[in-house]
Amino acid sequence: MSLQNELDAVPGVTARPEAATHGFVFNHTMLRVKDPRQSLDFYTRVLGFTLVRKRDFAEAKFSLYFLVLVADPAQIPAEEPARGEWLLSQRGVLELTHNHGTEDDADFAYHDGNSDPRGFGHICVSVPDIEAACARFEQLGVAFQKRLSDGRMKNIAFIKDPDGYWVEILQPNSLV
Amino acid sequence: MSLQNELDAVPGVTARPEAATHGFVFNHTMLRVKDPRQSLDFYTRVLGFTLVRKRDFAEAKFSLYFLVLVADPAQIPAEEPARGEWLLSQRGVLELTHNHGTEDDADFAYHDGNSDPRGFGHICVSVPDIEAACARFEQLGVAFQKRLSDGRMKNIAFIKDPDGYWVEILQPNSLV
Repeated sequence: MSLQNELDAVPGVTARPEAATHGFVFNHTMLRVKDPRQSLDFYTRVLGFTLVRKRDFAEAKFSLYFLVLVADPAQIPAEEPARGEWLLSQRGVLELTHNHGTEDDADFAYHDGNSDPRGFGHICVSVPDIEAACARFEQLGVAFQKRLSDGRMKNIAFIKDPDGYWVEILQPNSLV
Repeated sequence: MSLQNELDAVPGVTARPEAATHGFVFNHTMLRVKDPRQSLDFYTRVLGFTLVRKRDFAEAKFSLYFLVLVADPAQIPAEEPARGEWLLSQRGVLELTHNHGTEDDADFAYHDGNSDPRGFGHICVSVPDIEAACARFEQLGVAFQKRLSDGRMKNIAFIKDPDGYWVEILQPNSLV
């Protein structure tokens, strides 16, 4: 039996996607952030994301930031509506929600999901060279949840974004 | 000034990704789930994901399930190690973590992030025809957090996965 056939036999799994789901795309993951300036710095400078869209809702006092991590940002359509349609058709978009004013409240913090009550765990960025990536994160002063040398799994690391959300770092060909 | 130039000037943004981030990929989002049978049914049957990898850690009593939502599952390499390297190089992978035994505890529930303490908000699946998609979700008995007709934004919906995590549904060309 092939590997896919084995996986298709796992309880709960529908082996063949229904035709009605054709064209469905896992577009984005949304995280709330306290201070967009810090989060945008982290995701663009440290991890290489590009900010593709910003939406401000002044009356409701929140803003949305949509970021993508693409090899060549020049591929992103320059103008709307092509730009927005491209963005919402992509896989792997990161949406950050900023509720205005949280950045000025010293006691304010979001919940990273990894202590009670648990739920969301982490996002993950894969990198071509994990040793080089982690050395750079150290140089940049990025906070680590787990260094390569920590624990039993020596081939993955976890860094933390400015809100404390965990970002797993892995190298695809070192985990197979 | 172009739209991208305006976005590159948002406080915190690094306009040009550093060369050191070349090849970085936003690979996956991890959510903990109470009952993998229910979650796998929801993500494969209702949303069209394909289960690509399952990892069981018997001693530590947890399992990991990696799913992708791709137009043609035949593109997924059939055998390791190509399969794993492909998976970890993709954008838009969903990782579900199951801590063994939670499915047998009637009182057990994960936290969806949208009530205090807040943090993670939702994932999103974009669809070619949102009216058809939502009508099908109704037929399938999927729980809704927000129907198209609810609230002020008539062009997005939110459904709920078996753990109560919110899944936004949108149609790319209806939001631009």
